[in-house]
Amino acid sequence: MALIVQKYGGTSVGDAERIKRVAGRIVAAADAGAQVCVVVSAMGRTTDELTDLAGQISPAPHGRELDMLLTAGERISMALLTMAINELGHEAISFTGSQAGIVTDTSHGKARIVDVRARRVLEALGAGRIVIVAGFQGVSTDFDVTTLGRGGSDTTAVALAAALGADACEIYTDVEGVFTADPRIVPDARKLHAVSYEEMLELSATGAKVLMLRSVEYARNYGVLTHVRSSFTTGDGTWVRAEDERMEQAIISAVAHDTSEAKVTIVGVPDTPGVASSVFRPLADSEINIDMIVQNSSADGRTDISFTLPKDDLRRAGPILDAISDRVGASGVETDSSIGKISLVGAGMKTHPGVAADMFDALADAGINIEIISTSSIRISCVVRASEVERAVRTVHQKFDLAQEAVVREEHPLTATGQIRALRPDAAGSESRGTQ
Amino acid sequence: MALIVQKYGGTSVGDAERIKRVAGRIVAAADAGAQVCVVVSAMGRTTDELTDLAGQISPAPHGRELDMLLTAGERISMALLTMAINELGHEAISFTGSQAGIVTDTSHGKARIVDVRARRVLEALGAGRIVIVAGFQGVSTDFDVTTLGRGGSDTTAVALAAALGADACEIYTDVEGVFTADPRIVPDARKLHAVSYEEMLELSATGAKVLMLRSVEYARNYGVLTHVRSSFTTGDGTWVRAEDERMEQAIISAVAHDTSEAKVTIVGVPDTPGVASSVFRPLADSEINIDMIVQNSSADGRTDISFTLPKDDLRRAGPILDAISDRVGASGVETDSSIGKISLVGAGMKTHPGVAADMFDALADAGINIEIISTSSIRISCVVRASEVERAVRTVHQKFDLAQEAVVREEHPLTATGQIRALRPDAAGSESRGTQ
Repeated sequence: MALIVQKYGGTSVGDAERIKRVAGRIVAAADAGAQVCVVVSAMGRTTDELTDLAGQISPAPHGRELDMLLTAGERISMALLTMAINELGHEAISFTGSQAGIVTDTSHGKARIVDVRARRVLEALGAGRIVIVAGFQGVSTDFDVTTLGRGGSDTTAVALAAALGADACEIYTDVEGVFTADPRIVPDARKLHAVSYEEMLELSATGAKVLMLRSVEYARNYGVLTHVRSSFTTGDGTWVRAEDERMEQAIISAVAHDTSEAKVTIVGVPDTPGVASSVFRPLADSEINIDMIVQNSSADGRTDISFTLPKDDLRRAGPILDAISDRVGASGVETDSSIGKISLVGAGMKTHPGVAADMFDALADAGINIEIISTSSIRISCVVRASEVERAVRTVHQKFDLAQEAVVREEHPLTATGQIRALRPDAAGSESRGTQ
Repeated sequence: MALIVQKYGGTSVGDAERIKRVAGRIVAAADAGAQVCVVVSAMGRTTDELTDLAGQISPAPHGRELDMLLTAGERISMALLTMAINELGHEAISFTGSQAGIVTDTSHGKARIVDVRARRVLEALGAGRIVIVAGFQGVSTDFDVTTLGRGGSDTTAVALAAALGADACEIYTDVEGVFTADPRIVPDARKLHAVSYEEMLELSATGAKVLMLRSVEYARNYGVLTHVRSSFTTGDGTWVRAEDERMEQAIISAVAHDTSEAKVTIVGVPDTPGVASSVFRPLADSEINIDMIVQNSSADGRTDISFTLPKDDLRRAGPILDAISDRVGASGVETDSSIGKISLVGAGMKTHPGVAADMFDALADAGINIEIISTSSIRISCVVRASEVERAVRTVHQKFDLAQEAVVREEHPLTATGQIRALRPDAAGSESRGTQ
């Protein structure tokens, strides 16, 4: 008998009617013969509303108490969803993160799962019940209630799927899957049939919001076959799975963008050994995540160091940056919030070195200036003006013909990227069943 | 160092401003040198709203899931209250019912506390923290979340006070204490300085809503000194404590009323041994609480059996009553929802047999017909027409001069009830500090 873990986000369970609809979907999966374990987020904007309520009481509430507060949200949605399933004549039971055995470290607000002790979940599934588990939450090794941070329910689902040895983890969301670009910016963006864990990691890290980075890491580490799909339609979504060299493979999967970061430049830094550490150690100690870093050597023994960080952290970083500048003897700190980042991601890039050049060409032809570049083996990211981001996304999407199903067989050596394309009939067929 | 348990109801923590005010009150108690453990209910109408939400999903939700849902309410209020105390510079920590060691049986929706394992609470108090505990909830011996039923937070507070060996349990509410009658009906009703556990039990059982019956039972069984007082004023409320023969004692403490019951009469029941059991066993098996029972013998070997039960249970009781009537060969079942009950309660009644006669006289003089009478050693209850209840309360309140501080010393033998009165200066003094 197949065992599947399904995860429904807050929009999918936003009110009583939607909860009933989700219950119908879950029951259909059970009626089709599967054991079903469901992870559910808080209803609609509940988490935001509780956060606002906390803000009325305290500008900086203790993490432990904030977690206690926020976990009320899933308690409500999971109990209601369980009732709705019972109402359809199936036996269901709800478990809090603690009851489901989601054991985390003690970092309130962004706890990491350290163990999943799914005994109660397995027993309930074995007794023929549909199991509903609160997403986003766990219990710490100190027996306190913890939360996993934004998007944590995805991680709960993937972790449970791994612990239960589930056949698949279905992430239901309000979009139909992973697209070649944001369809709001690129109208002919195409839903992808499948991406590798590595590609999804890069996409999640560079602005695609469909799956949280940590859940993808977890899926990769435990080999959880993940299916991102819409809770409002029945079509296939996007499969996230291990890269398989025997499969046909696109060179480029998608272009992601992100306008949530700001650029900081420390100007006139003495170009001496250890200076980078002096700059970045204090930021790391304050848990400020630095993304792209560029340092140019210069003739006069001084250099500018630029990097990006989340705009949300900019205010907190301010005094730290000033202190760094003083300590290393730099001339000053410049910040720029009007930037955006576009990233091209594709597993096939590893073996096709022309991709970066093609991307830079396309942006240059469109008159878009690149301020910072960073690359991994399967990603190229460029910082551009924020006002140019949408045009940059469209330009790159078109340059690589991403609206077309572009696949490359390993036996087809290429000299230029994105020039040779082959339709993959089976994948195209499944795409056409989508409700895009 | 004194250790006090305080309990705040839903109205007292109805919004962010009120939560901050309650936090101030708690901190004041701590600053005065006490160890403080606080039990808190869900904010305002939260529990009702969650119940409504469940009703939109399922007309009869499973008890386990309903409990899971409802316990979200205290989770929110307790976290916010803890944040508010932290904001005032005191260290506070919140515990769920489960974390506070409130262990119950498995009766969802009306669980009974079977044990209090307050290790974590004691440790936190010992570490100088103010402890906030979710009222109304516990964890069952099967490790499921349970609720204690309406008013259950009072019971949580008293049970914790007993387990912690607290010096007092303060129940903060939206009234100033226990009154000689409902002040909305009797404008000159007087706040009582103290009542015995037994009196409070009778008052709670006969319609006084200020303390739930079960919490009073718990307080009596464990000798918890309880103080019912207003969360909006600073005056003394009413002490609930063990009866002390050495103390001055009023013959009558208060008159309570209750219009939530209906009267059922099974007409023409054969007057044979075992017939009462045939009538009441099926109702007991359906967990319908029967209150006053009257059976008159009659000449023709048939009798009418009348009793009262909660109006809320009337519909559920209907088919059971019809079946009973058929089985015992009665002529039929009559129900009457237009009744009310008034009860006179006083520990001094035990040694003063004239009270009942005085009460019946007063009602007769006022032209109010008594339909059923029942008595205990410290209570007399009469069923009258619902439309006559308020007038009956005022009549009896006046007959026994309850607006005046009426006390009787044990060394003052009485022949007639309510005729000899003596002011108790110390009590009168404390009353005048009230903010009535």
